[in-house]
Amino acid sequence: MLERIRIVLIGTSHPGNIGGVARAMHNMGLADLALVAPRCEVITQDSISRASGADHLLHQASIHATLEEAVADCTLAVGASARSRTLPWPMITPRELADRLPGECLQATSRVALVFGREDSGLTNAELQRCHAHVHIPTNADFSSLNLAAAVQVLAYECRMAWLSQADAAPTPADDDEQATHEELERYFEHLERALIAIEFHDPAQPRQLMARLRRLYLRARPEKMEMNILRGILSATEKAAGSRPNSAS
Amino acid sequence: MLERIRIVLIGTSHPGNIGGVARAMHNMGLADLALVAPRCEVITQDSISRASGADHLLHQASIHATLEEAVADCTLAVGASARSRTLPWPMITPRELADRLPGECLQATSRVALVFGREDSGLTNAELQRCHAHVHIPTNADFSSLNLAAAVQVLAYECRMAWLSQADAAPTPADDDEQATHEELERYFEHLERALIAIEFHDPAQPRQLMARLRRLYLRARPEKMEMNILRGILSATEKAAGSRPNSAS
Repeated sequence: MLERIRIVLIGTSHPGNIGGVARAMHNMGLADLALVAPRCEVITQDSISRASGADHLLHQASIHATLEEAVADCTLAVGASARSRTLPWPMITPRELADRLPGECLQATSRVALVFGREDSGLTNAELQRCHAHVHIPTNADFSSLNLAAAVQVLAYECRMAWLSQADAAPTPADDDEQATHEELERYFEHLERALIAIEFHDPAQPRQLMARLRRLYLRARPEKMEMNILRGILSATEKAAGSRPNSAS
Repeated sequence: MLERIRIVLIGTSHPGNIGGVARAMHNMGLADLALVAPRCEVITQDSISRASGADHLLHQASIHATLEEAVADCTLAVGASARSRTLPWPMITPRELADRLPGECLQATSRVALVFGREDSGLTNAELQRCHAHVHIPTNADFSSLNLAAAVQVLAYECRMAWLSQADAAPTPADDDEQATHEELERYFEHLERALIAIEFHDPAQPRQLMARLRRLYLRARPEKMEMNILRGILSATEKAAGSRPNSAS
């Protein structure tokens, strides 16, 4: 799916931003970068530095004179837009874009273009009107201008999230240690109560809510077998220390 | 909700990255920036240029010597981590973090810290072990190192999306007891270690992973203030029973 998504930058002015876009794309598994009438050199010290190891995307990038040329083979074009325009257009959020992507990328010939405008003035109305839909990244109303690489980062991240959920390969907790059983927990609570009595912290004649509160805490933590062993070990050491103490009042 | 979220940067080397973080934060409506032991000047031409109008966040940023100081009042600390560590920790995706945020920000005293490490080496194990959970931004396995400002951008975007969706369906404040702060938890861990030494369960010369494992367990349980008091009381009673000197400074 990700190989069917193209990032299109129109009239970019700063090589550093192109480098930052390349890094954001490669981080998220996108590789198809198209530059329309860039207003700066593409391969510079600054762009390579900001690409930080993703500079092969800069070298592979296609360069086009017009937006039409850059998206000629695309089956869906979505323009990034900061503001609503005079002529309302289908406007989606990045999350809604992500929801649509798997369906839009089904065919071998599917190509989705995500189109980004100039650092200073965005996309023109003519350019926006060549897009099927506009995507608006929700921002602070008082400070809505995202850095170009940051805007690409957000959409590329949503692309990757869509791809991961589609592949049902979302990262799962690495923690695969075995959970303690109910029985092991109950034995722990019995042992805990004995130890608390031994150190004179707990008086079963005046239980208040102590054991209930401790149960709630430890059950919430869902202890693993290994952790249960540590906690049992602490209780045994506590009982031993309490018993070996020089005898005080009883 | 957004005003209860703090971005914490540890040991940042490049002023431009701090500026880029400020811009990303302000774009998404976050304002609380904390810098721990920055390895560069904070206010420079480069940071102001990259902040692109969000430089008031640079001027307002708090500067701290240690992570503990920066998150002392935080009720939840989540560390950004690129890799799984030797000791697995609760690991969530940015989306899962977003799902949790409204509930984590309910109280007026709620403070959520999102903690980011150094550009070259990320967070240390000791720093990661002070966090309740780790958040991993899913990236290309072959190219996983995100730019610092880009990583903040992704999480800040998820914070904003969570805030926007919350505006639709505001969760009602729970009548739960107040959560322990980071500082209260750290004092508990210090006390726990002293008590384990007193009962000869723990040998600091041969720590193995004991304290890390116990940190993981208790951080996972998210203790409330009242529970923290009970656990501290148990430790004091344990020390007393073991005949060691009573806990002096707390």
